[in-house]
Amino acid sequence: MQRMQRWKLTIEYDGRPYCGWQRQANSPSVQQRLEEAIFGFSDEEVRLHVAGRTDTGVHALGQVAHFDIKREMTAYRMRAAINAFLHDTGISIIEAEPVPQDFHARFHAKYRSYRYHIINRKAPLTFKKGLALHVPQPLDAIAMQKGAKHLIGHHDFSSFRGAGCQAKSPLKSIDILEVSQKDDDEIIIYAKAPSFLYHQIRNIVGTLIYVGIDKYPPEWVKTALEAKNRCDAGPTAPPDGLYFVDVGY
Amino acid sequence: MQRMQRWKLTIEYDGRPYCGWQRQANSPSVQQRLEEAIFGFSDEEVRLHVAGRTDTGVHALGQVAHFDIKREMTAYRMRAAINAFLHDTGISIIEAEPVPQDFHARFHAKYRSYRYHIINRKAPLTFKKGLALHVPQPLDAIAMQKGAKHLIGHHDFSSFRGAGCQAKSPLKSIDILEVSQKDDDEIIIYAKAPSFLYHQIRNIVGTLIYVGIDKYPPEWVKTALEAKNRCDAGPTAPPDGLYFVDVGY
Repeated sequence: MQRMQRWKLTIEYDGRPYCGWQRQANSPSVQQRLEEAIFGFSDEEVRLHVAGRTDTGVHALGQVAHFDIKREMTAYRMRAAINAFLHDTGISIIEAEPVPQDFHARFHAKYRSYRYHIINRKAPLTFKKGLALHVPQPLDAIAMQKGAKHLIGHHDFSSFRGAGCQAKSPLKSIDILEVSQKDDDEIIIYAKAPSFLYHQIRNIVGTLIYVGIDKYPPEWVKTALEAKNRCDAGPTAPPDGLYFVDVGY
Repeated sequence: MQRMQRWKLTIEYDGRPYCGWQRQANSPSVQQRLEEAIFGFSDEEVRLHVAGRTDTGVHALGQVAHFDIKREMTAYRMRAAINAFLHDTGISIIEAEPVPQDFHARFHAKYRSYRYHIINRKAPLTFKKGLALHVPQPLDAIAMQKGAKHLIGHHDFSSFRGAGCQAKSPLKSIDILEVSQKDDDEIIIYAKAPSFLYHQIRNIVGTLIYVGIDKYPPEWVKTALEAKNRCDAGPTAPPDGLYFVDVGY
């Protein structure tokens, strides 16, 4: 039997046209498009394993996935070959590299990081439609940052855990959670952790927006966390503003 | 006769779906969409006068136009009313303000500024497709900046003047022309001048890219300028990366 080579892909994608990363019966997914692109030049039916599954409409700047393939080629040609079959899909291979056979995109990930982009202005969005959340009410980024501090560290995140979450425990550690302002009208929330619960970041963002519009004070985030009850935190922010940034191994 | 009020609009638009600013017989233009939106709530057929006409596919962050209307309303409501009729057009009114009757968006402009965005990486574009120029060959931004310096000041810009330019003279003054690098793989060229010749910025960008890929040294830009011949400068860069940034009055 011919030797298989394992490859690591770093992937950027515009999540707007997709039902998310994972293959689904009747909707286009990022995984399906990528597996089809690889089949396109290799005639091999590969299976991609991803570091962080993303939901419908969620974007990625540095998603990582691995797969095994018999076909031999240089890293440069591998990237070019896949990209040639991804024309006009909104998916782009930033890097392709051969890795040892025991590398695993999901199980070996030490941390994942995400960014959430909010455009805070009255005027509707143009370029950023579907690529950021539009919040017309003025947001207080400093209050949001104060609220965010209560979530850093090891906690029971039951209040921020989406329904259908398959994690065994609601205990998670957040290493970084930062709210910053850019270009006057853009607010960016950056989060880094070994792993996240289902919808955890979008639930955190919805909660911080409640603080940003002064519906609640920053300390309310601590109360919401300690309640360990999803009903006591803010709503789930839409996928539009969420970007999978990178993975550390 | 009812008194007319003059209004100044600050406009952002995604130029991808449009044949440019100006009305054309059989193609959608930004001007047409805006005039239709104003008619939508006012039943008045207004005529917009713009600070800087943009070509097919060129974008704007702070385009300025003025128009006269009988309908009385607050600035806040004017912006909201127009935006309500611009849904899903990729055009957004950032600001609407009543101005004196002698204000003229085009004739009173003291300067215009533009930015040109280049994504310099091997991987094809996703989010930025049509919103930046993709250059896969490595660009030397420092060489480009050196070349750009030769174009600052008052010169005969015949070498950078597009065919069909209606300006009386090829003499123009460029106040600022800066090449900067952002996020490793993005190069931004910023230009500010009282006014520009037709295609002047795109011809300058095409010329600076020749320097960036080391086809010519930075001093070649001076040679190209002094030739006063369009054939001696670089090609016209595509509209994708060009943004009308703002106008000063």
